[in-house]
Amino acid sequence: MSSIKATFKPGNCSVYVLSGTSILEAAGRAGIVITSPCGGGGTCGKCRVKILEGNILATSIEEKILSKEDISSGVRLACQSKITSACIIDIPPTSRESAQQILTKGIQNKKEIKPSVWKKYIELEKPTLASPQANLNLIREAVKTSFHADIYVIRSLSAILDEADYKVTCVFSDGELISVEKGDTTGTDYGVAFDIGTTTLVGTLLDLNTGEELALVSRTNPQIIYGDDVISRINFTITDKDGLDKLFYKISREMNDMISQLSKEAGINIHNIYKVAIAGNSTMQHVCLRITPKSLAKIPFNLVIREPVEIKAKKLGIDINSDAFVYVLPSIAGFVGGDTVACILATQLHKKNDIKLIIDIGTNGEIVLGNNKRIIAASTAAGPSFEGARISQGMRATIGAIEKVIINEDVEYNVIGNTAPFGICGTGLIDGVAELLKTGVIDETGRIVSQSEYKGNENIRRRIIETEKGNDFLLVDGHAARSKRPIFISQKDVRELQLAKAAIAAGIKILQKELNVTDKDISEVYLAGAFGNFIRRTNAKRIGLIPNISSEKIAFVGNASSSGAKLVLLSCDMEKETEDISNQTHYIELSARSDFNENFMNEMMFSEKK
Amino acid sequence: MSSIKATFKPGNCSVYVLSGTSILEAAGRAGIVITSPCGGGGTCGKCRVKILEGNILATSIEEKILSKEDISSGVRLACQSKITSACIIDIPPTSRESAQQILTKGIQNKKEIKPSVWKKYIELEKPTLASPQANLNLIREAVKTSFHADIYVIRSLSAILDEADYKVTCVFSDGELISVEKGDTTGTDYGVAFDIGTTTLVGTLLDLNTGEELALVSRTNPQIIYGDDVISRINFTITDKDGLDKLFYKISREMNDMISQLSKEAGINIHNIYKVAIAGNSTMQHVCLRITPKSLAKIPFNLVIREPVEIKAKKLGIDINSDAFVYVLPSIAGFVGGDTVACILATQLHKKNDIKLIIDIGTNGEIVLGNNKRIIAASTAAGPSFEGARISQGMRATIGAIEKVIINEDVEYNVIGNTAPFGICGTGLIDGVAELLKTGVIDETGRIVSQSEYKGNENIRRRIIETEKGNDFLLVDGHAARSKRPIFISQKDVRELQLAKAAIAAGIKILQKELNVTDKDISEVYLAGAFGNFIRRTNAKRIGLIPNISSEKIAFVGNASSSGAKLVLLSCDMEKETEDISNQTHYIELSARSDFNENFMNEMMFSEKK
Repeated sequence: MSSIKATFKPGNCSVYVLSGTSILEAAGRAGIVITSPCGGGGTCGKCRVKILEGNILATSIEEKILSKEDISSGVRLACQSKITSACIIDIPPTSRESAQQILTKGIQNKKEIKPSVWKKYIELEKPTLASPQANLNLIREAVKTSFHADIYVIRSLSAILDEADYKVTCVFSDGELISVEKGDTTGTDYGVAFDIGTTTLVGTLLDLNTGEELALVSRTNPQIIYGDDVISRINFTITDKDGLDKLFYKISREMNDMISQLSKEAGINIHNIYKVAIAGNSTMQHVCLRITPKSLAKIPFNLVIREPVEIKAKKLGIDINSDAFVYVLPSIAGFVGGDTVACILATQLHKKNDIKLIIDIGTNGEIVLGNNKRIIAASTAAGPSFEGARISQGMRATIGAIEKVIINEDVEYNVIGNTAPFGICGTGLIDGVAELLKTGVIDETGRIVSQSEYKGNENIRRRIIETEKGNDFLLVDGHAARSKRPIFISQKDVRELQLAKAAIAAGIKILQKELNVTDKDISEVYLAGAFGNFIRRTNAKRIGLIPNISSEKIAFVGNASSSGAKLVLLSCDMEKETEDISNQTHYIELSARSDFNENFMNEMMFSEKK
Repeated sequence: MSSIKATFKPGNCSVYVLSGTSILEAAGRAGIVITSPCGGGGTCGKCRVKILEGNILATSIEEKILSKEDISSGVRLACQSKITSACIIDIPPTSRESAQQILTKGIQNKKEIKPSVWKKYIELEKPTLASPQANLNLIREAVKTSFHADIYVIRSLSAILDEADYKVTCVFSDGELISVEKGDTTGTDYGVAFDIGTTTLVGTLLDLNTGEELALVSRTNPQIIYGDDVISRINFTITDKDGLDKLFYKISREMNDMISQLSKEAGINIHNIYKVAIAGNSTMQHVCLRITPKSLAKIPFNLVIREPVEIKAKKLGIDINSDAFVYVLPSIAGFVGGDTVACILATQLHKKNDIKLIIDIGTNGEIVLGNNKRIIAASTAAGPSFEGARISQGMRATIGAIEKVIINEDVEYNVIGNTAPFGICGTGLIDGVAELLKTGVIDETGRIVSQSEYKGNENIRRRIIETEKGNDFLLVDGHAARSKRPIFISQKDVRELQLAKAAIAAGIKILQKELNVTDKDISEVYLAGAFGNFIRRTNAKRIGLIPNISSEKIAFVGNASSSGAKLVLLSCDMEKETEDISNQTHYIELSARSDFNENFMNEMMFSEKK
């Protein structure tokens, strides 16, 4: 089955998907999370999109929910309409579970935007001989707020007051006067939120006056040359005497490069960026602060610092306004970092009465369960499998990766970038295993059956390859693969997936036990992180990765870590909230729990739950 | 009359004085201020000293005040006993109006020593898997006080805890954790107080645990190559584009050199110096902070910053403990700086009900009048004359300067260092003019009379030299002078002294008028600064430099600026007090007062007051 190109507006993101893929899913693959409160049931009507080019017929459900005028003008529901031919689709802001949408969970309206960076334009009276007044006191009296003044600002004060004829804009950040600028510059006030992942860096430029997102840039973490996961990065700081410095400079230079790109794209000056917020896992945050993370690699996985760090950007080598601050979010534990705090903040889990679950699968898998009374969190090293590590032909979700597998009469798959397949990424593996479970190629114990045991059709049977190490399943024939070598899901890959999903599922069970709640008590499951966005809920549930909860209760929250960092930029209250979250969230060290292994063994099985 | 050598113990300071000079005065010349509450009247008995070598007969007053045993063991009253032959004299700490004595005005006893720098030794419990704990939190819980942690300390935390087996000493300064040290280092806690004068720098090393003064060093301000007074220094920052940087590096390097010398003398490590306090005039303080002082040179003589500055030593290039703070005292106005605030603090003028007057004559002359209800201050540029500037043969009070003049049958004088005279310093000039007034060589208007007008003896008459520009008075014949040129007090010199003393006296009058007090209402006059220490009260009153107040009410308070800076090091309450003083002291700009000129003209006359 050939892939079809779908292009989304605004932004012109294109993806190739299998025919029959819902717009909702295709958009997800393009990194656009469409709001879907009813879980794709076609009942809430919130996922309205508009077909600009291409032919997509309205379904009967859409005919009930949408008006005739809407339908004739091309409006469809993203969860119902399937892509069957090349198309261009407009996704309006109201349908985007975008950062802006996520933000509304933390910030309800513009009135709530009160960044820790603020500006005030003042026209000062010049001192006279009869009433001399220190320059700094002139400002203190004019702004009527108490503040600390940075020495660098004081040093420039005399010149700037003369040059500006005593008409200046004061820039305050976190109780400090960080800049005095000539004339009225209150209109230009920017900040950058960073999500620093082990694998991926995401930077967002925000207008701190309006909350508007001006530019976004995503890069691969260049530290990757020193190791794929946090443990190998930490080991690098131990084995190489300049390891920490090397990692630090890699990341700080990349962040500067991203800031430069963001500024260029938005047409702003980096000196008008007055704040950076950084959310990352504990190791990344330690490295960004140039603090050795080595204690994180050995029992008891101790943090050097858990609390938030407010630090001058120049002390971290970050090039923005010269006296601006960087806010690095607080952590929770050695493997539950500021990114998880940001996720909790973005989902506002800590504010609600009902119990919610966050599953954030990045290079590590962090899980959080709780409400406004109690929050508990745990971490598993389950992530790498989902990012292709330890999988025989595994790869990251980049061009050439099989990201979707459907098995009916034969195997169909979709490849990112619409090229010949090169390997399989996490979602492809989950799909593949889920489909193989459904067709009976994989049994409940995770064993790939032999050809003779398989009762289905011949197209599938021929793909079961028996080896000494167990059976493999042929996904792509050699001639169709980029490398001309066939692509398999091996028995070992299935076992890796079992280990990974069991770790996460067992972690969730432990947290549930700790809070004394069952699946039924969980009102919502938030899937966060890049991986979470592309996962197919039914298949994730089929393999037992996520709890047996109805699909409408499972929400994709996109890059919630980024969203949390953005919230921090937009409201000083949110900084305080991150501290509360960090202090209130109880960390459970799964490896120290005697009941973890039992749960882990139970969760190894593929007992379909729905 | 030949000079006699007097040596003081402990310390072995020697000076040469005229025969008949009181021990009190001789000690003052050696920089030792002997406590003298009764003003040298021989009634209080507080100025006890002991003659170790040499013969000084007890006076009848001493026989009344002191016991026979005391007298026979060599005890004398410094105010009564006159030096008539070479001698060695012990001045016990109880008789010294030393820094320690001054400190007792601000700090009554050791219990009041509570420096802003303090240490705490803690033995931490190592974190476990069951209860992991961030390193920094371990410390927070152990010290039970809230603090900010410097990033540099956090970065070193992991290594130091491992190395010290979790037994460490935390060093706190001003609410910040500035250092974590291996083992128990609570015994070593030092600070350096600097008095940064335009001409002279004084550094004192203090033990912050005990308040003890460990070493003292005094240097000439090396900025002097860029100008003698603050105005020429400020002009240098305007005319030379790197002027401020040049001045800044000159002073910061010299301070480092002084710190190094202090540490060597006391045998301590500079890394155990955790705080520096700096008191100086406004220009010096601005330059120390690398803030341009140029606004101080033009109307309205505006400060850039009046408030105190708490700043990391490394930001000022000062080499002490790497995260230590420097406290730069607040100022009052463009020409009433942190040194004056320090003087007020040291004398505790701001705490008492009765009205006191501080006269601090350095390169500038600052005057302060007030009590715990109201304090007013003013500045005059009168200082330079007293430091030899603008005086025809004027010089600083260094070797070769005539520092004392007595005129009876002929002229007697004393030269610093007991060498041939080279010129005349401020105290010598005051003495000379006062004696010439007494003998009638100078009349009430300040005119040096002609030979024919003079009615006294021939020895004096022959010294009146008539010139076209008025009459001069020959102090030293050419053959006796080092340069083989005669040394005069010229008519112009008398005029300069008149201008200078009139400025200070008129300033005092304005302050008195402002507070509505007369000379009688002033309970005490504090003479501060190096110059103040050497001045002879009777002569200063005779020429009208200081108010007509009985001598026992006039106290020498030594380098009160240094004393104030030391107080700040020894008690964090004193930092707060400097701010209160800065805020409460009302500055009077004399040049903006319409009544200044009238007072100034009145004070020009030499109408003897007592």
